[in-house]
Amino acid sequence: MPKTHYFPKDTVHYTWDKSHEPLLRIQSGDTVIFETRDVSDRQFGPNSTTEDVANLNWDKVYPLSGPVFVEGAEPGDTLAIEILHMNPLGWGWTAVLPGLGLLAEDFPDAYLRTFDLSDGKYVHFREDIKIPIEPFFGTMGVCPKDADGQPIMPPGTFGGNLDTRQLTPGTTLYLPVQVAGALFSCGDAHAAQGDGEVCVTGLECPMYATLRFNLIKNQSIPAPQFETAGALTSKVNHAGFYGTTGVASDLMVAAKDALRAMVKHISNKYEMTPEDAYLLSSLCVDLKISEVVDAGQYVVSAVLPLAVFQR
Amino acid sequence: MPKTHYFPKDTVHYTWDKSHEPLLRIQSGDTVIFETRDVSDRQFGPNSTTEDVANLNWDKVYPLSGPVFVEGAEPGDTLAIEILHMNPLGWGWTAVLPGLGLLAEDFPDAYLRTFDLSDGKYVHFREDIKIPIEPFFGTMGVCPKDADGQPIMPPGTFGGNLDTRQLTPGTTLYLPVQVAGALFSCGDAHAAQGDGEVCVTGLECPMYATLRFNLIKNQSIPAPQFETAGALTSKVNHAGFYGTTGVASDLMVAAKDALRAMVKHISNKYEMTPEDAYLLSSLCVDLKISEVVDAGQYVVSAVLPLAVFQR
Repeated sequence: MPKTHYFPKDTVHYTWDKSHEPLLRIQSGDTVIFETRDVSDRQFGPNSTTEDVANLNWDKVYPLSGPVFVEGAEPGDTLAIEILHMNPLGWGWTAVLPGLGLLAEDFPDAYLRTFDLSDGKYVHFREDIKIPIEPFFGTMGVCPKDADGQPIMPPGTFGGNLDTRQLTPGTTLYLPVQVAGALFSCGDAHAAQGDGEVCVTGLECPMYATLRFNLIKNQSIPAPQFETAGALTSKVNHAGFYGTTGVASDLMVAAKDALRAMVKHISNKYEMTPEDAYLLSSLCVDLKISEVVDAGQYVVSAVLPLAVFQR
Repeated sequence: MPKTHYFPKDTVHYTWDKSHEPLLRIQSGDTVIFETRDVSDRQFGPNSTTEDVANLNWDKVYPLSGPVFVEGAEPGDTLAIEILHMNPLGWGWTAVLPGLGLLAEDFPDAYLRTFDLSDGKYVHFREDIKIPIEPFFGTMGVCPKDADGQPIMPPGTFGGNLDTRQLTPGTTLYLPVQVAGALFSCGDAHAAQGDGEVCVTGLECPMYATLRFNLIKNQSIPAPQFETAGALTSKVNHAGFYGTTGVASDLMVAAKDALRAMVKHISNKYEMTPEDAYLLSSLCVDLKISEVVDAGQYVVSAVLPLAVFQR
């Protein structure tokens, strides 16, 4: 009979490490309820401001809940994680963190905003701009083989800091098991984010989440895979979209050019600072590889859902 | 009073060249009806087979209809092209063309398939697989500044071979005018294609299309932009999606890894050859940049709409 477990709320770890003691042991088929801290580990709160960014202690960034030991899991197996339910816990933040982000050279200065998520449906970016809450964990992973104090950022083929917005409730994530027991951890929850997470943060928030784990024996995958239960970005997929493009011989350059054009478009058309346009892009603009095959010149599109401007 | 013009059916050009004689002169606000040839310039037809790929004369590839001279257009202006209506003309093809495509090294051999598009709604890839027809021009562009026999592939900031699937009826494309009169041309129509156009062809077909042109004076953009009238991929956005990922320090490597995993997934799960899985990916799988900011390791997702497998 599958069980539901409550993961201990007040214990976190800050690295991938195969010697972290499992805090919970479960069977395949079991469900676990997590309450995770925001990625700043409570260094930011609802009343934080830009001034607080300078004091951020990076050793405390990426507090993860875990590890969860899945009985019988071995390297060569696949761990399936069904994302049953998620609920952001009241507030969130997003920021320009100097030196990070796709346009780090254009945005050298810190900038932090916090948001009240109490209506449960939208991030109210401005009176006239609302972004649907579509929650997911920025980080879900199994412990990498031989991990010994490995930083949580960046991600890898073991999963981890995937920042992949499709991992919302209804989706199942598949991860390739690397060590005995899988040693699953999660955290870094986002209430909203576009494909790309361009400014380096999503809408970072504490999160309530229920995940169900199933072990698929003797079947491996080269990197994470996922299956959604239904439509993509369904909450904004009705009102039209505005796209900017970058065309370049390098996908990274094309992505930056597309995003620069989008920041300028949003800033001009909706009368906001470039900093706010950059944050808004990180929260709801999707980066698409439009073509990647035409004689060494590639097109990346940045696509803005116009539904966020509807009253 | 705006006019509707019929672009001459049987005249095409094969390069971008500022000395191409305009075949039609229009005013801002006018509509033009085009009937364009498939990108092979009729070298392939409904009965073509893989054997015909070896005889393809590349000098005839990319026949474009144009140029259209827009009265009053000057460098520094923007040309807005409203895509009013498009209708594929009966049949189409897709292929592996040796040396081209995102996985050129995995698929060295030619492979060509043709499709009957007579039902007007779907590309029937297999009895049990149907891809909604969502037509667009793979190539729409203004003549690049100083163009002198410039190949149609690749695209550039002037537009051209953008292969951007969002440019379906209802969308408006914005292009930065580079030469007097803009000298707009179009062709290379696709009945369907995923973000990426991974095998190097969409569903290539002859096309009927009506476009309306509006000139925006003294306002420029750095590269093409577009606005859609409604939902993205609305015909498949209901039945769930399967995603594979690539995680790498280079977006191109991540894109290849995600696609390789998708080809393997489709091939195994739906029992088809890798070649067919590669073509199917080119026609309906979308490449998304999931995150591009996490400590030098980036995630690209390849996302397959499960609606194509619904009866």
